[in-house]
Amino acid sequence: MASTVDNLSVVVHGAGVIRLENQSIPEPGRNEVLIKIHSVGICGSDVHFWQHGRIGDFVVQKPMVLGHESSGAVIKVGCDVTHLRAGDRVAIEPAVPQENDDFCKIGRYNLSPTIFCCATPPGNGSLCRYYVHNANFCYKLPEGVSYEEGALIEPLSVGIHACRRAGVTFGSNILICGAGPIGLVCLLVAKSMGAAKVMITDLSPERLLMAKEMGADITLQAKRETPQEMADAVCGHLSGMPDITMECTGAEVCIQTAIYATRSGGTVVLVGLGSPMVNIPILNASTREVDIKGIFRYCNTWPMAISMLVSGRLNVLRSLVTHRFSLEDSLQAFETAHQGLGIKIIIRCDKDDPL
Amino acid sequence: MASTVDNLSVVVHGAGVIRLENQSIPEPGRNEVLIKIHSVGICGSDVHFWQHGRIGDFVVQKPMVLGHESSGAVIKVGCDVTHLRAGDRVAIEPAVPQENDDFCKIGRYNLSPTIFCCATPPGNGSLCRYYVHNANFCYKLPEGVSYEEGALIEPLSVGIHACRRAGVTFGSNILICGAGPIGLVCLLVAKSMGAAKVMITDLSPERLLMAKEMGADITLQAKRETPQEMADAVCGHLSGMPDITMECTGAEVCIQTAIYATRSGGTVVLVGLGSPMVNIPILNASTREVDIKGIFRYCNTWPMAISMLVSGRLNVLRSLVTHRFSLEDSLQAFETAHQGLGIKIIIRCDKDDPL
Amino acid sequence: MASTVDNLSVVVHGAGVIRLENQSIPEPGRNEVLIKIHSVGICGSDVHFWQHGRIGDFVVQKPMVLGHESSGAVIKVGCDVTHLRAGDRVAIEPAVPQENDDFCKIGRYNLSPTIFCCATPPGNGSLCRYYVHNANFCYKLPEGVSYEEGALIEPLSVGIHACRRAGVTFGSNILICGAGPIGLVCLLVAKSMGAAKVMITDLSPERLLMAKEMGADITLQAKRETPQEMADAVCGHLSGMPDITMECTGAEVCIQTAIYATRSGGTVVLVGLGSPMVNIPILNASTREVDIKGIFRYCNTWPMAISMLVSGRLNVLRSLVTHRFSLEDSLQAFETAHQGLGIKIIIRCDKDDPL
Amino acid sequence: MASTVDNLSVVVHGAGVIRLENQSIPEPGRNEVLIKIHSVGICGSDVHFWQHGRIGDFVVQKPMVLGHESSGAVIKVGCDVTHLRAGDRVAIEPAVPQENDDFCKIGRYNLSPTIFCCATPPGNGSLCRYYVHNANFCYKLPEGVSYEEGALIEPLSVGIHACRRAGVTFGSNILICGAGPIGLVCLLVAKSMGAAKVMITDLSPERLLMAKEMGADITLQAKRETPQEMADAVCGHLSGMPDITMECTGAEVCIQTAIYATRSGGTVVLVGLGSPMVNIPILNASTREVDIKGIFRYCNTWPMAISMLVSGRLNVLRSLVTHRFSLEDSLQAFETAHQGLGIKIIIRCDKDDPL
Repeated sequence: MASTVDNLSVVVHGAGVIRLENQSIPEPGRNEVLIKIHSVGICGSDVHFWQHGRIGDFVVQKPMVLGHESSGAVIKVGCDVTHLRAGDRVAIEPAVPQENDDFCKIGRYNLSPTIFCCATPPGNGSLCRYYVHNANFCYKLPEGVSYEEGALIEPLSVGIHACRRAGVTFGSNILICGAGPIGLVCLLVAKSMGAAKVMITDLSPERLLMAKEMGADITLQAKRETPQEMADAVCGHLSGMPDITMECTGAEVCIQTAIYATRSGGTVVLVGLGSPMVNIPILNASTREVDIKGIFRYCNTWPMAISMLVSGRLNVLRSLVTHRFSLEDSLQAFETAHQGLGIKIIIRCDKDDPL
Repeated sequence: MASTVDNLSVVVHGAGVIRLENQSIPEPGRNEVLIKIHSVGICGSDVHFWQHGRIGDFVVQKPMVLGHESSGAVIKVGCDVTHLRAGDRVAIEPAVPQENDDFCKIGRYNLSPTIFCCATPPGNGSLCRYYVHNANFCYKLPEGVSYEEGALIEPLSVGIHACRRAGVTFGSNILICGAGPIGLVCLLVAKSMGAAKVMITDLSPERLLMAKEMGADITLQAKRETPQEMADAVCGHLSGMPDITMECTGAEVCIQTAIYATRSGGTVVLVGLGSPMVNIPILNASTREVDIKGIFRYCNTWPMAISMLVSGRLNVLRSLVTHRFSLEDSLQAFETAHQGLGIKIIIRCDKDDPL
Repeated sequence: MASTVDNLSVVVHGAGVIRLENQSIPEPGRNEVLIKIHSVGICGSDVHFWQHGRIGDFVVQKPMVLGHESSGAVIKVGCDVTHLRAGDRVAIEPAVPQENDDFCKIGRYNLSPTIFCCATPPGNGSLCRYYVHNANFCYKLPEGVSYEEGALIEPLSVGIHACRRAGVTFGSNILICGAGPIGLVCLLVAKSMGAAKVMITDLSPERLLMAKEMGADITLQAKRETPQEMADAVCGHLSGMPDITMECTGAEVCIQTAIYATRSGGTVVLVGLGSPMVNIPILNASTREVDIKGIFRYCNTWPMAISMLVSGRLNVLRSLVTHRFSLEDSLQAFETAHQGLGIKIIIRCDKDDPL
Repeated sequence: MASTVDNLSVVVHGAGVIRLENQSIPEPGRNEVLIKIHSVGICGSDVHFWQHGRIGDFVVQKPMVLGHESSGAVIKVGCDVTHLRAGDRVAIEPAVPQENDDFCKIGRYNLSPTIFCCATPPGNGSLCRYYVHNANFCYKLPEGVSYEEGALIEPLSVGIHACRRAGVTFGSNILICGAGPIGLVCLLVAKSMGAAKVMITDLSPERLLMAKEMGADITLQAKRETPQEMADAVCGHLSGMPDITMECTGAEVCIQTAIYATRSGGTVVLVGLGSPMVNIPILNASTREVDIKGIFRYCNTWPMAISMLVSGRLNVLRSLVTHRFSLEDSLQAFETAHQGLGIKIIIRCDKDDPL
């Protein structure tokens, strides 16, 4: 690559400080590929690292490139890489286990304690021009699947993993608490896995309108109800208790609502993260065998997401993108995200395919 | 009921003999309901009992009313019935376990050895004006779900049970062998459970056209290929081996094809019935951990089928109905079915709601 | 039966009041059997109803016979009963669903909202001489299985259901919090399902000694540790985190310990019941995908419990019985139970087979 | 290592030709370890490669070291190895996936099409003095687990994988066809996973006696019965149909027996390998929902096998070893195996710890 090529990157330096910086272009290792990044979505966690310099125990202790919802074109492959070659368009699974431990061997590699993840400190992210990644976690995009869709596979994967862990299937009736980006991907996936009725709740009427447009069967604006009142309202609207509740807010009252509302023998999946300790109506959950399951990222989702996208069954996914910015305008993109505008904001990193 | 009311019924007397006969109107027992039948679909097994007087060990030894895909209106309830009342529109699950044995207790009541089933000798079917059935196996149809849809829940249930046993889920790639009514319901259910690509094969180009119209992604006309050749062709068209194959023909060559074609770790579900003994490439299946599972009818399908129908997610189901006849014209309906015309033939039994 | 036959019964009249009373001998209904009760275990809930007149929302509002861990001999069968006859020795599953609803149909009949249970108000229990029960929930005891073992199947069933919901299997490492009767049956079942190491904790060194004698691999006396300290101690003793924790105390600190201690991807089963609301480290559980599952009684446990007992693989079960009383001495038995002496107290109800 | 150190190896050159040869001592790669082999079990497949030069499509095309049931001491580690060091005693999982493909990612790495396996052509085995293996597939043996037990984990793993795929659990009644080494490990594992009754059949009364000694509840010598007759005899002896049948012979009549004998809703696991095509009573299996599953080696078994061995719950495993030979006497060991004498023959490879 000519020395005139830049590797502009969005770097967070600690709470409140992000900068566009030019970094050197890395070389791929034996089983890695160098990717010319095309599209990167902004996630709530990117904004949170910028605003607070940390999420829980993950602290930005040295400058870190942000971004983990990415796609791009392979431009160079390591010597051991056989399934990809220069020119391939790929979506990037950002969390890569570092050793083949027991969690990997049983197919739950997301739980591997030493996993690397883009833009989780200290791991650099992919919101830049050129990025190197483990080749086994780069998935070729077939013709007909766009780079933007490739970048959206990351948030979609949260919905896939959550719906799988919840056991969504033909005829399930589902409550989703929270109509933000994650609530919406849960909605999309639940419907495509055969849910009969999906009800979604939120404080914001605008978000509920968006949910309605994306296929929610019933929406309900939450106000000042107690969790038990809210649960009653949900069951009234659904003509019965939901089989599954997907809690995407992290708020204590919503977690409580989720338990009260869910049908005996059903499942509450905790997708949103909130306080470390939460007061839970555990006797109600236990004696009705309502299982409580959390999720940590996702595993084994990219291949089927791509299968679905290429078959055209998830075309609605595209409509999550409400804003687009060039890499040069990233700081403005982050401001927009911080103001809570829109659903999904995409940053276009490829100078050869500008907005 | 006035004595002028008839209970016209379609009765098979043995191989080749069916007659329209007037039978007495039964009284419901304590936990039964009397149903004024509205719509009844003709199943291949009905035609088979008429043509051959038997299916395997099930022999028509005394006159038997045919029909087991039915819906109608409750007109009288037994003294112990609490969840239904006169006027309720219901779909009928035709196979009812007779005692609460171990199979029932674990939720696999379809395997109960003493199960009663409409129109399986010696059990009378529901192709008549008035029919009595166990109230727990009659499911209320909500507004917006038609009687015809109610009758179609029975064949749909075969597809639901088969897809559940197969583990169809988000992103599955699927091969269906046979594009008859059962292949088509498998197609509908598989797609609504999140299948990415569904490929369907048949000898008949007309049937494949119908499958295409109902949403098959790929169709392939089978000719004189060997099973291995056919498997190769399938994988070529699908760009890979299917995760699941649903075999709906019962033919030995198709069962063999199903095994060769299915991806390691996948599942072959045997939906079609054929010869008692079949030559199977068992070493191929075993060493690739391709599981082989049959299905016997269905269990726990009516509630979710109704949920799906009321949500509007299975409107395409209606298009399976290609012919309609009045109860008085039943013999003509059976002739039509015997000629293999159309997909699903419905007989309208209600004099008050004629064609 | 001669009029001289009594039906002495242990009846609770409200908080603090139990009496031995003679009641009339009931007649079995069509699908019921009349049982001459032989052995009945005292459960903590029996003592609780006596002491407090209620458990949560279940209030003793009229006199109620206690007892639900029972076995006896069939002496009369209803007209519809075919699988039992007079003289059969049976174990009684005390909770009987009242209608074939959706929970029953899917094999989770314990969740049926209208289920009847012996000695849960308003249902009378079986601590008496003669008792009538649904025949489908009476299981024949083969030769070689004693009446006492028959009565012990009820507490054993809690352990079976808990271990099944937890997914105990070959090589599992397990933590059990609480070495009371329920902790001990969880221990027995976990070991017989293939657990590699079972560690058990309790406040009482006597109970831990008993656990050790019954096969616990490691015991640990809890003192004033914080939940996190206790979790660290557990992992130290087990040389790793347990795959599964079975929480049998209901105490908040133990539930918290259970979550901190359990391996990522593992399961916490809540077997003990305590406060309705509990403060739970939900972020820790969620982000490590530690599932939280409660149990409500049991379902589908009697047949396999009997299979195990007849094969001799659960002979250790008998050693749970530390005290025996005649029915006439029941009040003394309840006093003994109330004082927390022993593990399992059995009341012998059969005058023809006295202690 | 001094140049006087030999690496004596048992090498097959084609059908009928094995030789003891001295090979060079290999160097471990970055993620590999060099192991001083201690104990190696002889498997039926080793004998088969010697006798026939092939198994199915796997043909010995160049000289190949035999042996894949091994344990030994690490004497050198590659630069990337962190969890092992020189001096560690290890058991070796012989089949190692070569790339992190979709099968690996979902936890079914045994199905990876490019998997390497010791002593499956063209992969060299470990029946030698010094052997190099992927470090992630070498598992540290804790104190108290012997090298012989370490070598026996390989055949044990077949039993674990088979019992898991079969769903053996508390109270299962099980039929095992064939009392050879694999039938016996299935027996051991099934019992330790909670099977109530295990019945085992074989042609040889000696083998059945051994099975009885290792814990079989019922044994039955097969003679000239038809499959249906044999199934009837099994159900008679078991007082019911087995929930699970583990077919360990590969013979067509046994596969047929397995299907006829197994309870509706149960599972037949095909563990033994035989003819590529087998005539199967598929209608019987399908309409009773008896699932047919094969196994290919094993996955995720070493860690729990070690947990069980260290806890002392599988001490009976040792009694499988009936013969021991030094590496120098390997040809005699193979003759003994070929004559079908004993159960498991172990070859001791370590000159410093001779027999």
